[in-house]
Amino acid sequence: MFKVTFAFEDGSAVEAFANQGDNLLEVARGANVAIDAPCSGNASCGKCRVQLKRGELDSKKTLHISQEEFQQGWRLACVSKISADVEVMVPDISSAYKSRMKVADLSSKEEIAIFEKAKKEVALTGIELRNSLDVVEVVMEEPTLDDTMPDNERLSRALKKYMNLKKVRIPYTVLRKLPDVLRDNHFKVKCVIRTTPDDMFVYDVFGMEEEVIVGGVAIDIGTTTVSAVLMNMETGEILAKGSAGNGQIRYGADVINRIIESRKPGGWKKLQDAVIKETINPIIHEMCKNAGFPKNQIYRMCVAANTTMNHLFAGINADPLRMEPYIPAFFKTNALFASDLEIDINRDAHIIVAPNIGSYVGGDITAGTLVSMVWNRPEFSLFIDLGTNGELVFGNSDFMMSCACSAGPAFEGGDISCGMRATDGAIEACTIDKETMEPSYVVVGEPGTKPIGLCGSGIIDVISELFVCGIINPKGKFVREGKRIRHDQYGMGSYVIAFEEEAGSVKDVEITEVDIDNFIRAKGAIFSAIRTMLTSLDFDVSMIDDVYVAGGIGSGINMKNAVNIGMFPDIPMEKFHYIGNSSLTGAYLMLLSTAAEKKTYDLASNMTYMELSTVPTYMDEFVGACFIPHTDTTMFPSVTEEMQNR
Amino acid sequence: MFKVTFAFEDGSAVEAFANQGDNLLEVARGANVAIDAPCSGNASCGKCRVQLKRGELDSKKTLHISQEEFQQGWRLACVSKISADVEVMVPDISSAYKSRMKVADLSSKEEIAIFEKAKKEVALTGIELRNSLDVVEVVMEEPTLDDTMPDNERLSRALKKYMNLKKVRIPYTVLRKLPDVLRDNHFKVKCVIRTTPDDMFVYDVFGMEEEVIVGGVAIDIGTTTVSAVLMNMETGEILAKGSAGNGQIRYGADVINRIIESRKPGGWKKLQDAVIKETINPIIHEMCKNAGFPKNQIYRMCVAANTTMNHLFAGINADPLRMEPYIPAFFKTNALFASDLEIDINRDAHIIVAPNIGSYVGGDITAGTLVSMVWNRPEFSLFIDLGTNGELVFGNSDFMMSCACSAGPAFEGGDISCGMRATDGAIEACTIDKETMEPSYVVVGEPGTKPIGLCGSGIIDVISELFVCGIINPKGKFVREGKRIRHDQYGMGSYVIAFEEEAGSVKDVEITEVDIDNFIRAKGAIFSAIRTMLTSLDFDVSMIDDVYVAGGIGSGINMKNAVNIGMFPDIPMEKFHYIGNSSLTGAYLMLLSTAAEKKTYDLASNMTYMELSTVPTYMDEFVGACFIPHTDTTMFPSVTEEMQNR
Repeated sequence: MFKVTFAFEDGSAVEAFANQGDNLLEVARGANVAIDAPCSGNASCGKCRVQLKRGELDSKKTLHISQEEFQQGWRLACVSKISADVEVMVPDISSAYKSRMKVADLSSKEEIAIFEKAKKEVALTGIELRNSLDVVEVVMEEPTLDDTMPDNERLSRALKKYMNLKKVRIPYTVLRKLPDVLRDNHFKVKCVIRTTPDDMFVYDVFGMEEEVIVGGVAIDIGTTTVSAVLMNMETGEILAKGSAGNGQIRYGADVINRIIESRKPGGWKKLQDAVIKETINPIIHEMCKNAGFPKNQIYRMCVAANTTMNHLFAGINADPLRMEPYIPAFFKTNALFASDLEIDINRDAHIIVAPNIGSYVGGDITAGTLVSMVWNRPEFSLFIDLGTNGELVFGNSDFMMSCACSAGPAFEGGDISCGMRATDGAIEACTIDKETMEPSYVVVGEPGTKPIGLCGSGIIDVISELFVCGIINPKGKFVREGKRIRHDQYGMGSYVIAFEEEAGSVKDVEITEVDIDNFIRAKGAIFSAIRTMLTSLDFDVSMIDDVYVAGGIGSGINMKNAVNIGMFPDIPMEKFHYIGNSSLTGAYLMLLSTAAEKKTYDLASNMTYMELSTVPTYMDEFVGACFIPHTDTTMFPSVTEEMQNR
Repeated sequence: MFKVTFAFEDGSAVEAFANQGDNLLEVARGANVAIDAPCSGNASCGKCRVQLKRGELDSKKTLHISQEEFQQGWRLACVSKISADVEVMVPDISSAYKSRMKVADLSSKEEIAIFEKAKKEVALTGIELRNSLDVVEVVMEEPTLDDTMPDNERLSRALKKYMNLKKVRIPYTVLRKLPDVLRDNHFKVKCVIRTTPDDMFVYDVFGMEEEVIVGGVAIDIGTTTVSAVLMNMETGEILAKGSAGNGQIRYGADVINRIIESRKPGGWKKLQDAVIKETINPIIHEMCKNAGFPKNQIYRMCVAANTTMNHLFAGINADPLRMEPYIPAFFKTNALFASDLEIDINRDAHIIVAPNIGSYVGGDITAGTLVSMVWNRPEFSLFIDLGTNGELVFGNSDFMMSCACSAGPAFEGGDISCGMRATDGAIEACTIDKETMEPSYVVVGEPGTKPIGLCGSGIIDVISELFVCGIINPKGKFVREGKRIRHDQYGMGSYVIAFEEEAGSVKDVEITEVDIDNFIRAKGAIFSAIRTMLTSLDFDVSMIDDVYVAGGIGSGINMKNAVNIGMFPDIPMEKFHYIGNSSLTGAYLMLLSTAAEKKTYDLASNMTYMELSTVPTYMDEFVGACFIPHTDTTMFPSVTEEMQNR
């Protein structure tokens, strides 16, 4: 038994005990020490750096640590084994998250095209792109000894006259500023207001000469990734775009583990801080810095997230979500304000939440449904959001049904030995030569970036190619031999996409039969959900007019390959459309337009939710779908054809 | 030049420089060091204790410091002169305030009689004693797989059904508690609600078995003293009563000095903290401790205070109040909540403010007017609130007019060499034998308490007796000689009520011609305000049917003596009524009854405000009133008569 001391930058420390050969990252997790490890410890991300202070570690060298850094004691925790008493310094995880944050360059039109498109489509349905947040100019008479009306009444009177309203609400923050702003500007001011049919709320007051932009933030809180846009609330213009890993990830990769973690003493606050203080606030900070925008002038925020993420974000007990009868605390709520949640924007900013419709179909899906436009077409469309959970919506302008299936983290690279998110070094596309079995691949990042792992779209490609080339059989087992095909001591096969010397990692980038098996179960969950839902409605896949695919799986997703592995139904390719992060786009629309916000509530109310686990045939469908492409190959004629053509 | 070091309990220290013979309390003030000194440094209160740590001080011994304490280095700062480099330890002023706090013993019926009386009088006018804060029991169906409505909708639905309402607002605090409280109590709960015609606000949720009392706090924020009651909002029962000196006093005795102080950098926050964190929160804490009541179950608070105190309480710039055209930021506001002001009660508690009607007639007067019942009688009544400012309201059920005059702090013992508030050791009543000129007096406190100073009612008695006995002339100058009458080197006379050996102080309790002069100006301000206001309305004092006197001057006020010195008009004694702290009683009524709250707003809107400084005759009236009883003695026939009868 060795003593392991984790020292922190603030001078504090945590001690733990471990056996010879124990993995340092695992020891840290056991001791509740937060080490940043987005790739879950497969040496691909290089984030779990610690610095050796005393004693020794049995560490593998990796390309993530330079020779100089190695000499300074830097090691990756995931490739370090305990071999003696040891003290390591653990970098502050919040700074790690910051460094992983990405603020997009908006000079590229591509980044904002998706929002422009959604705006146009929604506007075409007659939805007004107005959110009733405005800047108005107010000129008042200066008070005199004969006109001694107090400041707040003077402003109210002027605003009522201006807007022909009965009631004006001036909150404490504005009341506090009022005497100074009025007098510094000779009672000529600009007010940031929001009007409803009933009343007006005054968010802020400025001098007449100041330039005032009303800001808003739309945010998608994914289980794995948090993405946001900062926008001009009057024009809809996107001022900045940012994303970062969800800081909660160190409390578990899936929602269930996080709920369990949140029920430990002080747990809800740790989880809430991880997503707000360590993730959302830094993203907002970076976006505002990038756009030169004052955080205090962000007056509204819209959150789209799955039901669990919504609860943990709000610091509300999510335990009932994971236990029968699976009841959330809320679908909708108007009770959230920036000051309550310590979100670093204007303290009176209202936090609107895209509505949940069940414990496992959340606001990310309702917001995404808005974007998918399924609700606006007479034709039948299928909307699929591929996240840690897979969610489906099927319907048209007359009806919509939704369901959720637990796909697991495979689409985001989880549960896959060389899996990773679609960031630098990820293989996002791949083809394999049938004869030589040699791969060609595309890597995310600057040209020349070496591969370190596989993201979702890359995995789909590799499995599809392996199958179409006859390298694996419908069960995912290797049936051909070659230089790139290996078997371990138990006989488990694997295919090496990039050998260690070609890779940017310390090991081969490969895919194993276990990975393939995990992925088959994930894709099987999706396909069987589609089939079960359609069958329950007496529909057949041939009756689907369009499929809208959303999610972090990446724009590189090859739909044909997804059909080849039996993830999506075998229908003509032109029916498939990748619509990006529809949750974020939907949040953007809800923020921009009160009518779009209302429309989303309507969609949520009118959407039927189907609990797959209560459908007796779902399990049969799932078992049938756990083959490549399926036990019933007649459902996938194009796959058979493609195999013959290779 | 000597170095003076002020050390604090937290280990910090402030250094200042002083000359030989400088007063230590003055040195502290100059260095912005807060030493508790409610008597303003006349050695009567004994609060300005410091402990000598190094060096020496030229200090007078006082009865406030025992021999043992003196040996331990304790000194009163106000009687200590600088004679060398010195270091003194300054006790934490907030604990000093706490120790001076008084929580009343409610077993004495007297303490609550005034509230009961006001409640009855108001109820007799048809004002309903209901505030729409209620506790309701709610029994919900437990959710099942077939009934998966989320918690907040489930509660809303049940409450809507129960109350037949359209809209239910569940704030963040309640949303956060909801999943646990519902499940721990099988969906049988009690809710604390407030209903308006439009909607319902849910303040809290408890298990069905819990005993839930809805608490409220009414508070009078005086410039000098803060008083409060903790009440049961459903029954009006008073659960505790407390008071303490206003912690702002160290920033100035009057409102003008405090406004100036609040405009220095960080000043508004210091002033706000002094009244909220150092005064109001400790009073609430003590009241709750005394009553065994949870602070978190105080859901509403009503504040009655003058306009400046209201602004400084809310942390709002009060500077425009002291400069032409004297405009407040608000008369009324709905924008204040406990969480904004960091008041230590339920964070969603609404802070209602008795309405101000001008820069110098505030909520203390509108609340007091409600209690005075002036507005409910056809007869003409005069309501006088004697505080640091004097405010008057005159009228009947048809009209009301108000004005304010700057009386200064004399009624509360300020500006008087031996003046003090009506606490232990204060002479509150006095008679003088015309022949021997020997006094008899009543001292506040346990029997046997030695006198240390004079409170307002005592000063009135002493001056009245000195005049009626012919010891002083109408100008307040001493015209008889005797053992108790002294003249200093400049010829200034004084009368000793208690010689040092009889007194509980280090010096004689006396009244000087300067004191009398100060007091004459204070009473002259009141009387001339009465005359000016009545004259402007073409009224005469003989037409006053009743006079209601309120304020901290004490229930011991001898109305005949107040007439004798020319403070109040010479009308029959039975017309005078002392109604205690009407500001606090009014706040209590507003808290207890929504109708009373509304009535106070109506009174405020309908009350005319007269700015005395703009009335040309006011100065003449004032000069005429600066005699005892007045230059025109025909206005005070009963005084002449009494003098002849002695």
